[in-house]
Order: sequence, then structure tokens, then C-alpha cells
Amino acid sequence: MRIQRIDDNNSISEVLAALLKRSPNNYGEYEQVVAEILADVKENKDQALFAYTEKFDKAQIQAGTIQVKDAEIAEAYEQTSPELIAIIRKAKENILDFHGKQKQNSWIDTKENGSMLGQKVTPLDRVGVYVPGGKAVYPSSVLMNVLPAKVAGVGEIVMTTPPGPDGKISPHTLVAAKEAGVDVIYKAGGAQAIAALAYGTESIPKVDKIVGPGNIFVALAKKAVYGHVNIDAIAGPSEILVLADESANPRFIAADLLSQAEHDELASAILVTTDEGLAEAVSIEVDRFIEVLPRREIIQKSIDNYGYILLAKNEEQAIHIANEIASEHLEIMTKRPYETMTKIRHAGAIFIGDYASEPLGDYFAGPNHVLPTNGTAKFFSPLGVDDFIKKSSIIGYSKEALREVYKDIEKFAMAEELSAHANSVTVRFEEEE
Amino acid sequence: MRIQRIDDNNSISEVLAALLKRSPNNYGEYEQVVAEILADVKENKDQALFAYTEKFDKAQIQAGTIQVKDAEIAEAYEQTSPELIAIIRKAKENILDFHGKQKQNSWIDTKENGSMLGQKVTPLDRVGVYVPGGKAVYPSSVLMNVLPAKVAGVGEIVMTTPPGPDGKISPHTLVAAKEAGVDVIYKAGGAQAIAALAYGTESIPKVDKIVGPGNIFVALAKKAVYGHVNIDAIAGPSEILVLADESANPRFIAADLLSQAEHDELASAILVTTDEGLAEAVSIEVDRFIEVLPRREIIQKSIDNYGYILLAKNEEQAIHIANEIASEHLEIMTKRPYETMTKIRHAGAIFIGDYASEPLGDYFAGPNHVLPTNGTAKFFSPLGVDDFIKKSSIIGYSKEALREVYKDIEKFAMAEELSAHANSVTVRFEEEE
Repeated sequence: MRIQRIDDNNSISEVLAALLKRSPNNYGEYEQVVAEILADVKENKDQALFAYTEKFDKAQIQAGTIQVKDAEIAEAYEQTSPELIAIIRKAKENILDFHGKQKQNSWIDTKENGSMLGQKVTPLDRVGVYVPGGKAVYPSSVLMNVLPAKVAGVGEIVMTTPPGPDGKISPHTLVAAKEAGVDVIYKAGGAQAIAALAYGTESIPKVDKIVGPGNIFVALAKKAVYGHVNIDAIAGPSEILVLADESANPRFIAADLLSQAEHDELASAILVTTDEGLAEAVSIEVDRFIEVLPRREIIQKSIDNYGYILLAKNEEQAIHIANEIASEHLEIMTKRPYETMTKIRHAGAIFIGDYASEPLGDYFAGPNHVLPTNGTAKFFSPLGVDDFIKKSSIIGYSKEALREVYKDIEKFAMAEELSAHANSVTVRFEEEE
Repeated sequence: MRIQRIDDNNSISEVLAALLKRSPNNYGEYEQVVAEILADVKENKDQALFAYTEKFDKAQIQAGTIQVKDAEIAEAYEQTSPELIAIIRKAKENILDFHGKQKQNSWIDTKENGSMLGQKVTPLDRVGVYVPGGKAVYPSSVLMNVLPAKVAGVGEIVMTTPPGPDGKISPHTLVAAKEAGVDVIYKAGGAQAIAALAYGTESIPKVDKIVGPGNIFVALAKKAVYGHVNIDAIAGPSEILVLADESANPRFIAADLLSQAEHDELASAILVTTDEGLAEAVSIEVDRFIEVLPRREIIQKSIDNYGYILLAKNEEQAIHIANEIASEHLEIMTKRPYETMTKIRHAGAIFIGDYASEPLGDYFAGPNHVLPTNGTAKFFSPLGVDDFIKKSSIIGYSKEALREVYKDIEKFAMAEELSAHANSVTVRFEEEE
């Protein structure tokens, strides 16, 4: 694995530019195709949805078969090992526990003149969770997308996922959905599923928000319907950045870098360190692991394209690089990792110490594994309960409270030349004038 | 003003369909123009920005003049009445006070096995606030967009607003920006300003999030750059819904309906009531007010197109209608308005009682006046401190804590066929195996 010495800001910029090439914002070429699918499903509803399912998923789905039946879920349980079901349930408990701590309360603030200001928190009515199909089946992703909505108290959670050519859904996906408490599962995928969730069809109800990962067509479709419904952040390829000093274990670091690199060829794995010895040791361990790991072809490409060992001049520069890259996953393996953490401004999830390996967060610890990628940790947050609630301001004023301020409001409104605004407070005291 | 009896769900659907016509999502025709402006500014930076400013704003702006100078701000203060400055300062205090209560803390949750999970809250580094130019000048909007970012602790707040043909900015805008604590003000508007904020130019730095209202070109540009940077909700035309029973004052209601109707011809004003007498009285008061209000032409068009007095069968139906419309502003004038409020699921801001008139919220009370419009209160929240922070998950595990669960993680990873994920925990206990 290549080692690159960072001497100035310029070489950081080059790394950043290389990483940004992976952005899902660079796929404008498919926008027109997606726009056509969206328009077609919006207008022709189920008919268009079923036609696209036949075209793209090679599956014959109709109104009577689009909704997964109880018998199919029962069958999925039979096809899943009791051991995996037990692990899914343990992970579920941890995820519920962590997300339960994210719940926000409505609040009010009262004054004795009869005024009351506050904020009311309400869960969304209906949420759609998109789950990708194909060969890669990630029950953990179902848990991570559905459970925060459950904790928030969402009224109805529907899931869509593309069927195989046999019209079936992977048993692990169905088991995870059932365990997480999904209300209805529909066999639909791609941009056509996003359109169905955004606009509603005869079979699939319109939702208020769509979450969940997907390919570029799904991502573009979500962006296109944003505003009509809400969506989660647009997901890009996965990434890890390890910030380590000479106290770190190179074998642990190498294993963790590769755990991200195996996701896909666009995944990125970066070590930033001030210690040249560690840099070299990690490079050697990476090469050793690649030889024995089953997904070595994907890993090798990902490491060749987006893998870096960056040698920083000092700790300050190392932290600066980590903040500039704003990695989805950041592992800190320094002598005083909690102290280092206080200096981190931008990361999706921060893993602290030698034993907080990244897959712990993917599967089990409880925090969400749906995290901002590709530098968007500078402005996006992990998926969480916040994504499934919304707030309303509360403004209650007595006559006495309004009397104290209405002249100011009149004048402010008139300064903006909005006389009907002024009139709306004036009228309340016209008898006193 | 027309009175419409709501007999079944169908007539509510008609009203909803009419209101949704106002959606900013229906302007796809301008997407291509906006895409071209974005691409041009992304590539040619200042040069393109200045050319568009000359083309659209008829103003000659160069690198030396794009940034508002201290002398221009001093001049703006001279041109603003001390009375208005004092009112702006009072409003600012109320807005800071309310938003201060929205601040969220980082938190951690520890277990005695050495594990620590939590969530770290960090303000954004740099935010861009867009302020529209033209005839309508809204200093209140500057306060409402900037102050939550200040409360959040954003590192740098930059503002862009289109100059007049003389290259100047409205003095009220400049005073409000200075009072709110904007760091730098740039003379740039339209889609080209959004492009400059999203990609950066020689003169304007790239920001992490863009907020603020604007015309359709600004709205489409914001949507297009979403994901590359973050944006606030896409704003549509303003609206009010008054939910009232026979205890309400028809003159207050009429004045409040018109305070929204005066915004523009797409604004919507709706009364929902169970009382036919109130419906008729409000209709008469509306007509009376229109005759004397300066902005009567806009008001009349807005009332004709998107004004409704809806007569509900009973309180339950009235509340159902209010929740379905999910109005930006909702006023409750019923006998027990706080009790009614508990049944409201969807509204941007809820104004309670006879004296919480909507302009109180626009200017003065403290809650934000940037609110979800056009039914998006079903999934969007008022602008607030939440919009200017983001979260990172924290995961710290001791060796002991990881030992308790690593076998489960291995198995979950292998069920997803991600062997490098499994390896990353296995390697940490290889000496114990």
C-alpha cells in the first residue's frame, strides 16, 4: 500500500480531489432516465411500476403479489439459522437502546404575562425504507434504517426492495424487517420504487420521507423527489480513516482498513500517522491480509485507487487532515485517544482506542451505521431519531403580552411595507386607540 | 371570500390539489438554465459570477467591490431610523433567547466494562445565507436566517445578496446583517450566487450549508447543489390556516388571513371552522379590509386563487383538514385552544388564542419565521439551531467489552459475506484463540 508524505496543503488537496471523484453528485448523465421513470410512475402508477419491475428485475409482479405475505415471512424464518436470528435480536436491543437516548422532548417556556413559547415534537406519519436487492444482502442495514423510525414513533413504516426474477425476497432481509417491526413490505426496487413511495400508486401508499441506500438510480431518484417528500442524506461509497501514532497496533489498523476496502471498488481506506515506522508496518500487514481475504480482488482495486497511508509532519497536521477529509468512519488509535477525539470536528462516527474496531459499529454497538460519506460529515449527521420526527413552533400570547409589543411589530411591518401584517396586530387594539 | 362546505374527503382532496399547484417542485422547465449557470460558475468562478451579475442585476461588480465595505455599512446605519434599529435589536434579543433553548448537548453513556457510546455535537464551519434583493426588503428574514447559526456557534457566516444596478445593497438589509453578526457580505444573487457558495470562487469561499429564501432560480440551484453542500428546506409561497369555532373574533381572523395573502399572488389563506355564522362574518370582514389595504391587488388575487373558508361538519373533521393541509402558519382560535393544539400533528408554527396573531411570529416573539410551506410541515421543521450543527457518533470499547461480543460480530459479518469485517474483530483476539 502506497505511503505518501504530506508536506504542504497542496498534497492534501490532491487526495481530497481524488476522493471526491467518487461522489454520487457526478452522475448527471442518468438524470434524464430517472426523470422519465419518475414521471411515468407518477402518471401511470402501478401499471408503470410493474412494467419497470419486469424490465429491470425480470420479475412478474402484480397488485396481488407486490405485498409480501405472512407465509413468505414464515418461510424466511425457516430458511434463517436460529443463531443468526438470535444475533439480529441482540443487535436490535443495542440499537434500540442507543437510539432511545436520542429522543427529544417537546418543551415550553412560559412568562407571567401570559405568553408561552415552545417547540412540539411529532413523529412522521409514514416512512418508506428502501432496501437494495441483488447479491449483497445486508440485514444489518434493515435494522439500522428501520429501528430509529420505530423509536421515533413513526405511524407506519413501509419497506420496498427489488424481488429476484423468481419474485422472491432474500430471507435474511425479510427476517430483519420483521424483527425491526416494518409494517408492510413491497416488492419494488430502483427509481420506480422511489417514485411509488414519493407519489403513491394503487398498491403503494405515498410516504412523507424515504430513507435507505441504493444504487445511482435510487440516489438520483431520491434527490429528484426531495422537497415533495423528505429524504435522508445521499449515500456515497464507504470509507475509513485511521488516525494513529506509534502506540498503535499495525495489524489491527491493516485489518480495519481492509474491512472498508472490501465493500466495493470505490470504497476508500486511509491511514494518517506521524510515525514512519507504523506507516511501513501497516503497509506490509495490508499486503499480507489481502492475500488471504476472499474478497481480495475488490479490496486490491479499492486500495489501489482510494487507499492512502499519509505521513503527517506532526499531530496538528494529522488532525487537520482528518478534519478536512471528514471521513464516514474515523478510528483513533493514539496514546490518549479520548483527548485526540476532542479535536475532531468532522467525522460520521468516531471509534476510540485499539478495541473499537469499525465493524463493531456496523453491526452491534448500537449507534447507527448509516453515516455521512465523502466529506459530507462536514454538514450531515448519522441517521437517527431526529430523521423521523419534525418540530412545530408554539406561540401563545395573552392580550397583555401582545399589548407590550404590538407597536414595535406595527413599525417593523411598515418598514417592510407589509401593511396587512401591521393591520393584524393593530385591529386587536383598535378599541383602545 | 368564498365559503365551501366540506362534505367528504373528496372536497378536501380538491383543495389540497389546488394548493399543491403552487409547489416549487413544478418548475422543471428552468432546471436546464440553472444547470448551465451552475456549471459555468463552477468552472469559470469569479469571471462567470461577475458576468451573470452584469446580465441579471445590471450591476458592474469586480473582485475589489464584491465584498461590502465597512464604510457602506456605516452609511446604511445613517440611512436607517434609530427607531427601526432599536426594534431590530429587541427582535434580535427575543430570537436569540428562543433559539438558545434549542441548543443540544453532546452526551455519552458509559458501561463498567469500559465501553462508552455517545453523540458529539459540532457546529458547522461555514454557512452561506442568501438574502433576496429587489424591491421587497425583509430585514426580519436576515435576522431569522443568521441568528440560529450564531447560536449554534458556526465558525463563519457569509451572506450574499444581489446588488441594485448602482452596485448597492439596501441599507435595512445591511443593518440587519451587521446586527445579526454576519462576518462578510457579498454582492451576488440568483443561481450564480448559489453556485459560488457551493463551489467557491476566487472571491467567495465554499460553504458547508446554504440557507435563505429566493426566487425559483435560487430554489432550483439550491436543490441542484444539495448533497455537495447541505441546504435548508426548499421554500414555497407563504400560507396561513385559521382553525376557529364560534368563540372566535371574525375581525381578527380576517386581518390575519390577509396578512398572509399580501405576501404574493401565490400565498394562501384558509379558514376552517364548524360555525357557519363565523364563516359568513369572516367573509364580510375580509372584503371590508381588502378595500382599505394598500396591497389590495395582490391580496385580491391571492384570495381569489388560494383563499378558502372551509365549513367542516364537526371539530374532528376540522382538525383532520388542518393536519392534511399541514399549513406553514396555523392559528387556533377555539374555546380551548391549548387543548385543540394537542391534536395538531402537522404545522410549521402554531399560534394559540386570540392574541397570538401571525405577524407576532414573523417579527418579534422569537421562534423562527422560516417555516415549512405547502404541506411540507408533514416532514420538515422550522429553521433552527439544529440546522447549523451536525452530530458524530462516539464508540469507545475496551478489550474486555469487545471480547464479550466479538463472536457475534464475526457471525453477523459472515452472514453478510463480509469476511474482512469479521477479520477486523478476529485479529484482535488471535493470540487467545
